[in-house]
Amino acid sequence: MGSKRNKALQLIPELLKPKKRRIAYDPAQEPPQRRADVQSVYSVFHYNETELLEQQYSSIKDHQDLRKPGYITWINADGLKKEEVEQLCQAFEVHPLLVEDILSIGQRAKMDEMDNRMFCLLPMIYFNNTAACIEFEQVSIVVGENFVLSFQEDATRDVFDPLRHRLRSGGQRLRERKADYLCYSLLDVIVDSYFGVLEKLADKIDEIEDALLADRDATILASISHLRKEVMLMKRSIAPVRELVGGFLRTGNQLVESRHEKYFKDVSDHIIQANDTCENLRDMLSNLQDLYMNRINLKMNEVMKIFTMVSLLLAPATVIGGIFGMNFERIPLLHDQRGFYISVAAMLLIPLMMILYFKRKKWL
Amino acid sequence: MGSKRNKALQLIPELLKPKKRRIAYDPAQEPPQRRADVQSVYSVFHYNETELLEQQYSSIKDHQDLRKPGYITWINADGLKKEEVEQLCQAFEVHPLLVEDILSIGQRAKMDEMDNRMFCLLPMIYFNNTAACIEFEQVSIVVGENFVLSFQEDATRDVFDPLRHRLRSGGQRLRERKADYLCYSLLDVIVDSYFGVLEKLADKIDEIEDALLADRDATILASISHLRKEVMLMKRSIAPVRELVGGFLRTGNQLVESRHEKYFKDVSDHIIQANDTCENLRDMLSNLQDLYMNRINLKMNEVMKIFTMVSLLLAPATVIGGIFGMNFERIPLLHDQRGFYISVAAMLLIPLMMILYFKRKKWL
Amino acid sequence: MGSKRNKALQLIPELLKPKKRRIAYDPAQEPPQRRADVQSVYSVFHYNETELLEQQYSSIKDHQDLRKPGYITWINADGLKKEEVEQLCQAFEVHPLLVEDILSIGQRAKMDEMDNRMFCLLPMIYFNNTAACIEFEQVSIVVGENFVLSFQEDATRDVFDPLRHRLRSGGQRLRERKADYLCYSLLDVIVDSYFGVLEKLADKIDEIEDALLADRDATILASISHLRKEVMLMKRSIAPVRELVGGFLRTGNQLVESRHEKYFKDVSDHIIQANDTCENLRDMLSNLQDLYMNRINLKMNEVMKIFTMVSLLLAPATVIGGIFGMNFERIPLLHDQRGFYISVAAMLLIPLMMILYFKRKKWL
Amino acid sequence: MGSKRNKALQLIPELLKPKKRRIAYDPAQEPPQRRADVQSVYSVFHYNETELLEQQYSSIKDHQDLRKPGYITWINADGLKKEEVEQLCQAFEVHPLLVEDILSIGQRAKMDEMDNRMFCLLPMIYFNNTAACIEFEQVSIVVGENFVLSFQEDATRDVFDPLRHRLRSGGQRLRERKADYLCYSLLDVIVDSYFGVLEKLADKIDEIEDALLADRDATILASISHLRKEVMLMKRSIAPVRELVGGFLRTGNQLVESRHEKYFKDVSDHIIQANDTCENLRDMLSNLQDLYMNRINLKMNEVMKIFTMVSLLLAPATVIGGIFGMNFERIPLLHDQRGFYISVAAMLLIPLMMILYFKRKKWL
Amino acid sequence: MGSKRNKALQLIPELLKPKKRRIAYDPAQEPPQRRADVQSVYSVFHYNETELLEQQYSSIKDHQDLRKPGYITWINADGLKKEEVEQLCQAFEVHPLLVEDILSIGQRAKMDEMDNRMFCLLPMIYFNNTAACIEFEQVSIVVGENFVLSFQEDATRDVFDPLRHRLRSGGQRLRERKADYLCYSLLDVIVDSYFGVLEKLADKIDEIEDALLADRDATILASISHLRKEVMLMKRSIAPVRELVGGFLRTGNQLVESRHEKYFKDVSDHIIQANDTCENLRDMLSNLQDLYMNRINLKMNEVMKIFTMVSLLLAPATVIGGIFGMNFERIPLLHDQRGFYISVAAMLLIPLMMILYFKRKKWL
Ligand SMILES: [Mg+2]
Ligand SMILES: [Mg+2]
Ligand SMILES: [Mg+2]
Ligand SMILES: [Mg+2]
Ligand SMILES: [Mg+2]
Ligand SMILES: [Mg+2]
Ligand SMILES: [Mg+2]
Ligand SMILES: [Mg+2]
Ligand SMILES: [Mg+2]
Ligand SMILES: [Mg+2]
Ligand SMILES: [Mg+2]
Ligand SMILES: [Mg+2]
Ligand SMILES: [Mg+2]
Ligand SMILES: [Mg+2]
Ligand SMILES: [Mg+2]
Ligand SMILES: [Mg+2]
Ligand SMILES: [Mg+2]
Ligand SMILES: [Mg+2]
Ligand SMILES: [Mg+2]
Ligand SMILES: [Mg+2]
Ligand SMILES: [Mg+2]
Ligand SMILES: [Mg+2]
Ligand SMILES: [Mg+2]
Ligand SMILES: [Mg+2]
Ligand SMILES: [Mg+2]
Ligand SMILES: [Mg+2]
Ligand SMILES: [Mg+2]
Ligand SMILES: [Mg+2]
Ligand SMILES: [Mg+2]
Ligand SMILES: [Mg+2]
Ligand SMILES: [Mg+2]
Repeated sequence: MGSKRNKALQLIPELLKPKKRRIAYDPAQEPPQRRADVQSVYSVFHYNETELLEQQYSSIKDHQDLRKPGYITWINADGLKKEEVEQLCQAFEVHPLLVEDILSIGQRAKMDEMDNRMFCLLPMIYFNNTAACIEFEQVSIVVGENFVLSFQEDATRDVFDPLRHRLRSGGQRLRERKADYLCYSLLDVIVDSYFGVLEKLADKIDEIEDALLADRDATILASISHLRKEVMLMKRSIAPVRELVGGFLRTGNQLVESRHEKYFKDVSDHIIQANDTCENLRDMLSNLQDLYMNRINLKMNEVMKIFTMVSLLLAPATVIGGIFGMNFERIPLLHDQRGFYISVAAMLLIPLMMILYFKRKKWL
Repeated sequence: MGSKRNKALQLIPELLKPKKRRIAYDPAQEPPQRRADVQSVYSVFHYNETELLEQQYSSIKDHQDLRKPGYITWINADGLKKEEVEQLCQAFEVHPLLVEDILSIGQRAKMDEMDNRMFCLLPMIYFNNTAACIEFEQVSIVVGENFVLSFQEDATRDVFDPLRHRLRSGGQRLRERKADYLCYSLLDVIVDSYFGVLEKLADKIDEIEDALLADRDATILASISHLRKEVMLMKRSIAPVRELVGGFLRTGNQLVESRHEKYFKDVSDHIIQANDTCENLRDMLSNLQDLYMNRINLKMNEVMKIFTMVSLLLAPATVIGGIFGMNFERIPLLHDQRGFYISVAAMLLIPLMMILYFKRKKWL
Repeated sequence: MGSKRNKALQLIPELLKPKKRRIAYDPAQEPPQRRADVQSVYSVFHYNETELLEQQYSSIKDHQDLRKPGYITWINADGLKKEEVEQLCQAFEVHPLLVEDILSIGQRAKMDEMDNRMFCLLPMIYFNNTAACIEFEQVSIVVGENFVLSFQEDATRDVFDPLRHRLRSGGQRLRERKADYLCYSLLDVIVDSYFGVLEKLADKIDEIEDALLADRDATILASISHLRKEVMLMKRSIAPVRELVGGFLRTGNQLVESRHEKYFKDVSDHIIQANDTCENLRDMLSNLQDLYMNRINLKMNEVMKIFTMVSLLLAPATVIGGIFGMNFERIPLLHDQRGFYISVAAMLLIPLMMILYFKRKKWL
Repeated sequence: MGSKRNKALQLIPELLKPKKRRIAYDPAQEPPQRRADVQSVYSVFHYNETELLEQQYSSIKDHQDLRKPGYITWINADGLKKEEVEQLCQAFEVHPLLVEDILSIGQRAKMDEMDNRMFCLLPMIYFNNTAACIEFEQVSIVVGENFVLSFQEDATRDVFDPLRHRLRSGGQRLRERKADYLCYSLLDVIVDSYFGVLEKLADKIDEIEDALLADRDATILASISHLRKEVMLMKRSIAPVRELVGGFLRTGNQLVESRHEKYFKDVSDHIIQANDTCENLRDMLSNLQDLYMNRINLKMNEVMKIFTMVSLLLAPATVIGGIFGMNFERIPLLHDQRGFYISVAAMLLIPLMMILYFKRKKWL
Repeated sequence: MGSKRNKALQLIPELLKPKKRRIAYDPAQEPPQRRADVQSVYSVFHYNETELLEQQYSSIKDHQDLRKPGYITWINADGLKKEEVEQLCQAFEVHPLLVEDILSIGQRAKMDEMDNRMFCLLPMIYFNNTAACIEFEQVSIVVGENFVLSFQEDATRDVFDPLRHRLRSGGQRLRERKADYLCYSLLDVIVDSYFGVLEKLADKIDEIEDALLADRDATILASISHLRKEVMLMKRSIAPVRELVGGFLRTGNQLVESRHEKYFKDVSDHIIQANDTCENLRDMLSNLQDLYMNRINLKMNEVMKIFTMVSLLLAPATVIGGIFGMNFERIPLLHDQRGFYISVAAMLLIPLMMILYFKRKKWL
């Protein structure tokens, strides 16, 4: 029994006390300066059709000339420090309300426009294989004339590598187009990365399904419940991304070239698809839970019925034993040589007749 | 018992481990070149009111003159090879984003317009009678001035045969009209084919209903659960087709003649009807499951009650047997000649009185 | 017990295997020629303010002059034959797509306009009192300048008699107005007839409620489940009629006089009311089912508890009997004259003390 | 136990067979002449800023001059007779379709405009304290230039008394304004009266909550179920009133002065609030039901477990008693002086050890 | 066991009878004069870019010059007295319908405009840590040209302190802008304060989750049920705030400067986020309840099964004891020296064989 339990725990290792995630964020307070001790990294790409300049700074303070005429500039900030983010945003004339959003955490995805800057904020989602849970990193993107700023909390990971690779290798459209195409490309890789996470979740569901068909360990239920929580969280997180992409499609802002609209439409298709997949996964988990509970119930009913029945079939023997164990002076059969055999035969025959009767009554 | 189980399994043969279907598709990666080993088939129809030319190629490379002035051209590609699809699409000036969609798999149905090409993508659905499950094949349709391209993954089957037959036999309207009417006709036969699948699903539900009324085998529940999954999958797959057809109705594109709108409206009616039918089927399955669980519960309650009661009715006999089986020196009745008979009578009468009391209390 | 079961069965007579109804219709195939053997009946009314001409034909073929200048013409076709319907429709210039709809079966209610013909299709619903289920007959209505065509499948019944009566008796508004008012009148009597069916369903629910409060026969649950299926079917069938009537209200078509809009609005009110009533009935059935299951559960719990308790209260007697039934050489009290009475007293007192303890613990 | 049951029954006195209410109304038939035997009362108010004339008629026939130039006229008809209603409506040029609505019963609330008459129809709702159920009275209101007609079924009660009082005491705004303000005032007192009913329902819920925390009588469940039915009925009845008030806000009809719109908006706020309150009450009842069922289940589980356990703990004694009650010639300990005590000690010690083991296993 | 119960009760201290809150408010009656005995406080701020004048009055009567040219005036009324509120509102030309709203209690949040006054009304929400429940205070805000009035019921607390602090310390934007910005700032601190309450609710849920994983005390269920009620109440209360803020965004009123729209948009973001958080909390609580009930059920099933099984395994011993305890003259083995040992061995071996059989049948 222990080994079965272990197997289920293996599915969802840290099940009983998952890593705490913030449930509600409190915008009333200024967000704390984010890890002043952590080293921030600012990766700057200046590029046009023919050239690509790539730089890395550990601080924004000493580098005042962040824009380069004739180039599209992409600055990716990894690890957010309040003053530096504010300084960078001031340099690119980003409204303080947007800075507040960039510095906040755990926000709902959204798209905004202010003072000819397009802004969006959405989660990058990673699958933590060890804890079988999803993890979030908020990324904020600011688009202006010829520049894109992206802000990430965690310097150790993001999903932009394919994009960097395409930039460096002179990816056809990407290098020729304006900043809005870069913004599209960032959204595209983020949304595409959701499908990898969904695939992992689907795999976990498959593992549980297999485990379910093999045994009936109680931890399976907890695994299903845990996974459903993750799927719901995923759904809640990516649902507003649809509206975000819609924001780019509906904006009349000339920062978005009309020939690029079809690309944003393509991202829109994908995020709708991701939402659908979430619902499919949730359905599958509900289905699994129903199936599990029904299996448990049917099995328990079956077992209880058999136990009760066996118990019942033994009862006549007890009664007969009691009858002939009484100490009355005169009891029939007691002195008969066949008496004992008759009584034991009755002990066997009565249950047999009961079985036949129950079978005819369809109770078995 | 074994035979009953077999009967239920016969309903849904491969129940315990159905053929895996992809749950989540991952658009982040380029779709793999599709079965380079499989022979692709390109069926080309050139037709107008008076003539029909029909050709088949195994490769697109050698045939550059795919369009024929004065004719409507329908090219149906069976079995997709990346390079050939790209080559064909380039010849007909189809946008790369659409090519990406054609080459992807497991996508949600949708309609799109790009560069004066109308595009749609939807599932053909087949019912696999052996596994009692539905199977999908994605079909992509591109409509341009005087041509229609259709792309299918699986060369072994489609639902277009009635249409081919009508083309060859000079079907009245079909041969006289433009490419949009051919597109309508393709959508029509696809949507019509959904009803065949729904009919099959309804038949399976009927079989389960009959089985349910006859016995109470535990696999019925799994069959219901399985079929509901299929119905939900069906519903999810065809729900976006409604919007797809709406796309053709709302488009201002002159590729769609206004006198053909009523035909698309007719397809729209059918897909709404198909959606309704899905919901009816799901309701019926929920109903069946409720009925099944209730039957099980009522039966189990009834059986348990009777067992408990019989068990209880035997208890007095045990007690009386115990009383007169004690070895006290002085026990009343023990030396009475009628003692034994009195005690056995009590063993019978007390349960009888209990039964009468229970009946009066409505516990039986 | 048998009589109770019979009583419930009386509520829903053919419960266990209701008359099959088509679940999914298949528009892919040409509808079969409808009962070529059945005699079709064409009732023709030509009327104006002052005159009414009434005729009946058994075939449409010999009667080419179906319209009569200066008169409104209403042709009601009972029993559909494919060629005759097509011939009649051609005579009145009805589009082939509408003919296809007229000849199909089991369609969702809808309203359409094509080539200056207004078309609608909706179910007439009858209550089959014997089977306690609802039955459908599809009626298609075509309205043109000065004529109305109505098509019914079943020649044996419809709900138009009050209308015919009003026509013949010179019903004030009906005879003075145009074809659209006749169409309104047809819709009105159809929608009004829904309420009669709803009333019958409500009566059945009331019967079940009474049965539920009187006994707890298992077939009540099936009756509830059956009725809910009927109510849902009713709801699904009449829900789209709302949109149908809306179609007449929104159409700019001059076939609908503006002074008649209020009449269509009145039908619209009624169909909304009918929808509401369906939801009320469904709620009542859900409520009944909950109540029933809860009654069963509470009763079962109560019974099981009492049985278990009585069983438990007898246990001490068994133990004491066992103790003094042992054959040890030296057992206290065995040779005491009061021994037997002490032990029997213990057999009575211990259960009594248990009852008192349980009562104090609120377990009873 | 009887007294507890009585207490719960006291909550909802006529629970088991509440007064029948019409579920579905049948507009197909002419509504029956409403209680020709009942005396109708027509209260007529003619008022302007300075004067108020109040009259009562028992019949409308003899009083042809129902309007009075320079005055606003409010005629309230209590107890509807078909001919008189038709006559009154004809005098004020009310369309026959509206007359049909006035004479019907059990209709859904709605607002309508016809021939420069504004019409609305909504329920007055009363709380029947004896039966703990809500009761309806349909009130129809017709507004025209300088007059308001109101029609009620039941002459014995309405909610207009505060309004009559305000009219008579020269209520500031009411006497100065036009007929639309009177109509607003009628709607306002009707909607305000809903809150009194909701308050009563909330009180009943509170009573049940208290009863629930005190005992676990089975009728509580029925009370909850009954109250939920009432709340749902309330919700269904007042939900369309929102749209009704919206009708007055959206109408372009000059009968509604623009400076009075804010008053209708105020009624609109209240009806939204009443709807919200209904949902709150329904939630509270669902919550109570869940709590109740869970309490029952937990208690039953607890009781069953303890009974089963006690039963189990007595089992070893039975076995040991059986062992040493066997009649073998040679049984160890039988002739030992301590034999009896050893066996009885075992009867006590084994259950004790079982208890310790179960406690360690957390089964207790 | 007592200590566990105490621990759970500690979570939700006044669980069994929470402080009554009004469920339904009754606008039909004039709200009672609000605590004539309570001292009202009127805090008046006159400010512009350069100056801030702060005053406190205990009554509004003696101070007629409440506006100060060239200054923005904010009057916050704490503790509402009917006459004084009416007097103050008359001084600022606030419509009587709004005064009625200000004086009412327990209203749904809403935004309104009348006679160039913008009005809104929403709850401030506090978390009562002792009773683990939320508490409401209705705040009404009136905005006009250069003034803002705010009305609160409870003089002892509000959430405006950060704002007062910013005003006094010369908060940059706040002092330069018009009255609409002050209104925005009031809304912002109110909405921000919701997140603090949500955080507290989330903490309570976490406590329950920990308690759930540690024990299975029945009061956990009540705690979950109680918290869900609080969360639902929170959700219902803040849901209409979204529409309220939307009112300020959609109004064309020039009282709202267009450059301030983004600030209202920011509040709108936050209230959407708060709504989302409420749904997350509700989901978590549903999840916890499911998990709890499932744990209880599985544990109970497990325990019952083991008890039943042990009971069953002892049954053969009882039977064998009965058999050899019968007093027949001739019973095999009785005089055999090994008889007793054989029978006791059977008592042990039969249960052992039963265990093996059950294990093979997977019933254990
Ligand atoms: Mg703030
Ligand atoms: Mg990162
Ligand atoms: Mg993508
Ligand atoms: Mg699988
Ligand atoms: Mg795409
Ligand atoms: Mg793509
Ligand atoms: Mg991509
Ligand atoms: Mg194919
Ligand atoms: Mg079709
Ligand atoms: Mg059937
Ligand atoms: Mg059609
Ligand atoms: Mg068709
Ligand atoms: Mg077709
Ligand atoms: Mg008919
Ligand atoms: Mg009608
Ligand atoms: Mg009834
Ligand atoms: Mg009407
Ligand atoms: Mg009517
Ligand atoms: Mg009628
Ligand atoms: Mg009345
Ligand atoms: Mg009011
Ligand atoms: Mg309370
Ligand atoms: Mg108000
Ligand atoms: Mg008011
Ligand atoms: Mg149970
Ligand atoms: Mg009022
Ligand atoms: Mg306060
Ligand atoms: Mg804020
Ligand atoms: Mg946690
Ligand atoms: Mg913000
Ligand atoms: Mg903010």
